[in-house]
Amino acid sequence: MNALSARVPSQVIIREVGLRDGLQSIQTQLSTAQKCAWIREAVAAGQTEIEVGSFVPARLLPQMADTPEVLAYAKTLPGLSASVLVPNLKGAERALEGEADLMILPLSASRAHSLANLRKTPDEVVAEVGRIRAARDASGKKTLIEGGVGTAFGCTIQGEVRVSEVLRLMQALLDAGADRVSLADTVGYADPGAVANLFEQALRVAGDKFCCGHFHDTRGLALANIHAALLLGVRRFDASLAGIGGCPYAPGASGNASSEDLAFMLASMGIATGIDIDKLLALRAKVAGWLAGEPTHGSLWQAGLPKHFNPSAA
Amino acid sequence: MNALSARVPSQVIIREVGLRDGLQSIQTQLSTAQKCAWIREAVAAGQTEIEVGSFVPARLLPQMADTPEVLAYAKTLPGLSASVLVPNLKGAERALEGEADLMILPLSASRAHSLANLRKTPDEVVAEVGRIRAARDASGKKTLIEGGVGTAFGCTIQGEVRVSEVLRLMQALLDAGADRVSLADTVGYADPGAVANLFEQALRVAGDKFCCGHFHDTRGLALANIHAALLLGVRRFDASLAGIGGCPYAPGASGNASSEDLAFMLASMGIATGIDIDKLLALRAKVAGWLAGEPTHGSLWQAGLPKHFNPSAA
Repeated sequence: MNALSARVPSQVIIREVGLRDGLQSIQTQLSTAQKCAWIREAVAAGQTEIEVGSFVPARLLPQMADTPEVLAYAKTLPGLSASVLVPNLKGAERALEGEADLMILPLSASRAHSLANLRKTPDEVVAEVGRIRAARDASGKKTLIEGGVGTAFGCTIQGEVRVSEVLRLMQALLDAGADRVSLADTVGYADPGAVANLFEQALRVAGDKFCCGHFHDTRGLALANIHAALLLGVRRFDASLAGIGGCPYAPGASGNASSEDLAFMLASMGIATGIDIDKLLALRAKVAGWLAGEPTHGSLWQAGLPKHFNPSAA
Repeated sequence: MNALSARVPSQVIIREVGLRDGLQSIQTQLSTAQKCAWIREAVAAGQTEIEVGSFVPARLLPQMADTPEVLAYAKTLPGLSASVLVPNLKGAERALEGEADLMILPLSASRAHSLANLRKTPDEVVAEVGRIRAARDASGKKTLIEGGVGTAFGCTIQGEVRVSEVLRLMQALLDAGADRVSLADTVGYADPGAVANLFEQALRVAGDKFCCGHFHDTRGLALANIHAALLLGVRRFDASLAGIGGCPYAPGASGNASSEDLAFMLASMGIATGIDIDKLLALRAKVAGWLAGEPTHGSLWQAGLPKHFNPSAA
């Protein structure tokens, strides 16, 4: 323990987003049974939070058409928090109907990216969160609302995204009724210095309501960026098995942080995740087999765990 | 600037080790002319420190047999610090003869790895440094002596390596006459927490004489580990173009930190390296072409620099 590590958390949650952010950006269509098997085995490996799909129109993302069935299955697994992505009120209504534990509404801090991706300005998305909050409260359901601010470190379309705009939108989301907010480096523009700068201010704005960091490994920096956030005490990170994923609207973006590499880094650092890495690697092998021909990522699966690896001794 | 970033340096040197640590562990043999072209273009891209080869018996590493010629060429390039690896006094005498700017003597903190790799105990290597120092002083040459403590985070053969033993050996190297010392994660066992812990103590032991961190990307953590060291103020890192390399005596080790990905991370963080990343990527493409069929690594070359990337504005 030193001044640098004083805020490093003792426990971290790896939220699995491979079934949503991963599968939506690749061609191969997994069957509903395969998705359910993935979720079941991820839970058996110790994962407790999984983004199981998204409620977008099936004509846009046919890979996500079975989200109702996948969510219904996920809800049968004790101890699992099942989340879904919802682009708007209509999607939120389906998430409430399915009793998702959490719905995540993406907002792009880049106005240009927001218009290209969601056909709305960022402030129009904030207004939608207000309507979603009203619908949730009227429904009596317990589904939490997370506002996810994307392109938080820059954007392939407009370039720079100002920190002040990211912080303004986080506050606006909370004011509009989001239960919590997260930040995403949608297109792989973050670096550890920028993470330290933005996340420290985000924690000042949102406190405990700042709940998650989402990093892409586009230029190899995902784990270094996560390390920068860990030093600030951030306790939840999105990651994707085999690092699959990207953003279909962000050319050049490729690969989420790999769940198994992140689990290894955290275990090595003595940070508890509840994950059995051997089981996660076995699941990775299975999913990579299903996705044969698609690009997968990550390093641990190639090298294996270090000989004599004993995370509990860390 | 915050408490975490207070010690982050404004300038960092990426010491290129691809011509030594990289080439020694792959089959393809580059010609002397190719090596000299690599060095020339690396200098043109802004690299100022290059490990150009090693003075080991040619029967053990035929790839390094032309080190005298490559060193002689490197010495003609103004502003370049040309270093060589030397395993013993005999190699050191050749480095002195060739007027290398720096010779690096590897020592393995793992006794088992040391015996397998160098057929000496760590303390026998320390004694050799004493003889090398005497030879250097007698020669009147200016060649600096660096003791590089490898397997500093663990070892594929013996497993755990104790921090106290690493620190003891660093001090012993300095006492024996090394001008400076460095630490290497020879087999990819380090994690950012272990780096923070060991490097902080190493800086206490060696102060300004602790000069460099050497990380392998075996399990994807090289840049996160370097980030941990940057936060302590470490200002020099070994890296290898296209991430080539490993240790021929450490099964499973593969891939140094990639020079171009590290250059990108540092530039993104606003840390000056003097490197023109576009030129480095062009050189990477050329070297990867020469090494066609060999495993290369890294992410930046695939994704390219971010649109609107402007490191000077960082």
